[in-house]
Amino acid sequence: MNREPQVFGRVLSSMCTKPHPEAREAAQRFLADNPGDPTTYPAVAELERKAVETLGEITGLADPEGYVASGGTEANLQAVRAARNLSDSADPNVVAPESAHFSFQKAADVLDVDLRLAPVDDDRRADPAAVRRLADEDTALVVGVAGTTEYGRVDPIPELAEVAQAVDALLHVDAAWGGFVLPFADWEWNFDHAPVDTMTIDPHKMGRAPIPAGGFLARDETVLDALVVDTPYLESTSQATLTGTRSGAGVAGAHAALSALWPEGYRENYDRGQANAEWLAEALDSRGYEVVEPVLPIVGAGELRVVCMPHVTREMLEEFVADLDSL
Amino acid sequence: MNREPQVFGRVLSSMCTKPHPEAREAAQRFLADNPGDPTTYPAVAELERKAVETLGEITGLADPEGYVASGGTEANLQAVRAARNLSDSADPNVVAPESAHFSFQKAADVLDVDLRLAPVDDDRRADPAAVRRLADEDTALVVGVAGTTEYGRVDPIPELAEVAQAVDALLHVDAAWGGFVLPFADWEWNFDHAPVDTMTIDPHKMGRAPIPAGGFLARDETVLDALVVDTPYLESTSQATLTGTRSGAGVAGAHAALSALWPEGYRENYDRGQANAEWLAEALDSRGYEVVEPVLPIVGAGELRVVCMPHVTREMLEEFVADLDSL
Repeated sequence: MNREPQVFGRVLSSMCTKPHPEAREAAQRFLADNPGDPTTYPAVAELERKAVETLGEITGLADPEGYVASGGTEANLQAVRAARNLSDSADPNVVAPESAHFSFQKAADVLDVDLRLAPVDDDRRADPAAVRRLADEDTALVVGVAGTTEYGRVDPIPELAEVAQAVDALLHVDAAWGGFVLPFADWEWNFDHAPVDTMTIDPHKMGRAPIPAGGFLARDETVLDALVVDTPYLESTSQATLTGTRSGAGVAGAHAALSALWPEGYRENYDRGQANAEWLAEALDSRGYEVVEPVLPIVGAGELRVVCMPHVTREMLEEFVADLDSL
Repeated sequence: MNREPQVFGRVLSSMCTKPHPEAREAAQRFLADNPGDPTTYPAVAELERKAVETLGEITGLADPEGYVASGGTEANLQAVRAARNLSDSADPNVVAPESAHFSFQKAADVLDVDLRLAPVDDDRRADPAAVRRLADEDTALVVGVAGTTEYGRVDPIPELAEVAQAVDALLHVDAAWGGFVLPFADWEWNFDHAPVDTMTIDPHKMGRAPIPAGGFLARDETVLDALVVDTPYLESTSQATLTGTRSGAGVAGAHAALSALWPEGYRENYDRGQANAEWLAEALDSRGYEVVEPVLPIVGAGELRVVCMPHVTREMLEEFVADLDSL
């Protein structure tokens, strides 16, 4: 039986990657710290505040509220939970494009809200008119995706914001994977581009932090307040996170990755990943595959999906294409 | 600003501890693996299966269903979620003793179920008659705690199982902290002692695994089935965990700690922790504090609470008592 960690030399479809060396080192040092208990573990709590500040910079938000979550599923679930808790409706619903990550299905089950999935347009992006048709006075949240899981599509966030405002709902942007490449591409997707209320942006995907390091951001503290549960503890009397004890490795790793890579290192990751994606798309196209144009570093072609993460080299892609040729 | 991880030499009230050296080493190696994607990361998925098997041994369950969760909050939430999803009631409720961990409050908010808290008896244990008075045909879950957060109390699990059966509810035991000391103490608390349906037992507390390593166990696969959400992936088509991407460090660390310590290492931890707790209780009592007798390695006295975790030495407790004397 194989008892070794995964070697990334053949991993072409994961949204996780090899952590940055400084992030790995920081994670190892803080393995036993619990940012969920900031009184006992103040150093890691301070690293979390700094990480959230930098995530705000990346997403165009000057005074971000939020925290380093266990991952994108938690962050998406918390966005739905806050919207549900803030909604006046007795039977709140969420409207998302059908390209949304399946964590919204999970959130709908956990939180007992109705999830309405709107068809996407010909380029696989959310169709604001279709979203509008499904939204009504019971809609608590409209979801847009900035970098879809399957094809890396960026939904028209400003138009979705208009839909959300029309029905008095919050707007959540899921940039779990896309958030670390979009600052270098030409899309309107962040808090500064539109009245976005909450966002998911995961350092442990394109951010090169070790697992578990998701990011949940909110423009207003009312959103965090809607998540708060009282604790029986003397020094920290409330908690807005979904989990209790949390990973110091994730928080310290995220902080170290952000410090080492924002912005120039992430720009290089994006440039290299995008060039690799375009090279692969061309190689597949010339072999007769139906390739979806990679607007971000993901190449989809039929059942194939290659995510051009930082560990994916041109050599790996050349081998992959050679393997296809030999089939 | 302090940028160093917490040193455990003065930590007396945390339920986390210094990981076992082998657990730390395994966690560091598997930092970039994702047990949430068993097809891409098969080795860590196999470590998780073995860890769950050992957790079953510790809790008296021959063929355990379950997984390594992010922590006790997730495990408790999943127990409530499964019970809610399996319930016929349109308005399900959960009945727990008022000594239950505040994660049940969080679960009630997230899952939109009614949480009914029953008063405890004079020894701070759940009172089955009081629990029975709050339970009704809408009760989906009865909760018992095996090692309470404040005083280490073990609820009368077999009697709570009778209450659960009387109202056709599931029974959950929260042994998040207590599960690694109770095998060596004389209580009826586990799957073999009573018809317990689900249990929380956290390797990252008394189990000496690094964070994040909680444990969620179920007797029947119907419970896991009630948590399943379909995924769009080719090879693993469903997911019962609350989070999506999960920590390889937590899983590999838990597996390594369990392999190194079960049963003899955990017995030594218990013996030393219990002896320390009794020594401290006596020292505080002789100084006039109102001490609650430590039935497990936690000492409560008024606002004071000392958790005799594996990193807590007699010398630390002597210094603590000397500090109290000098106040």
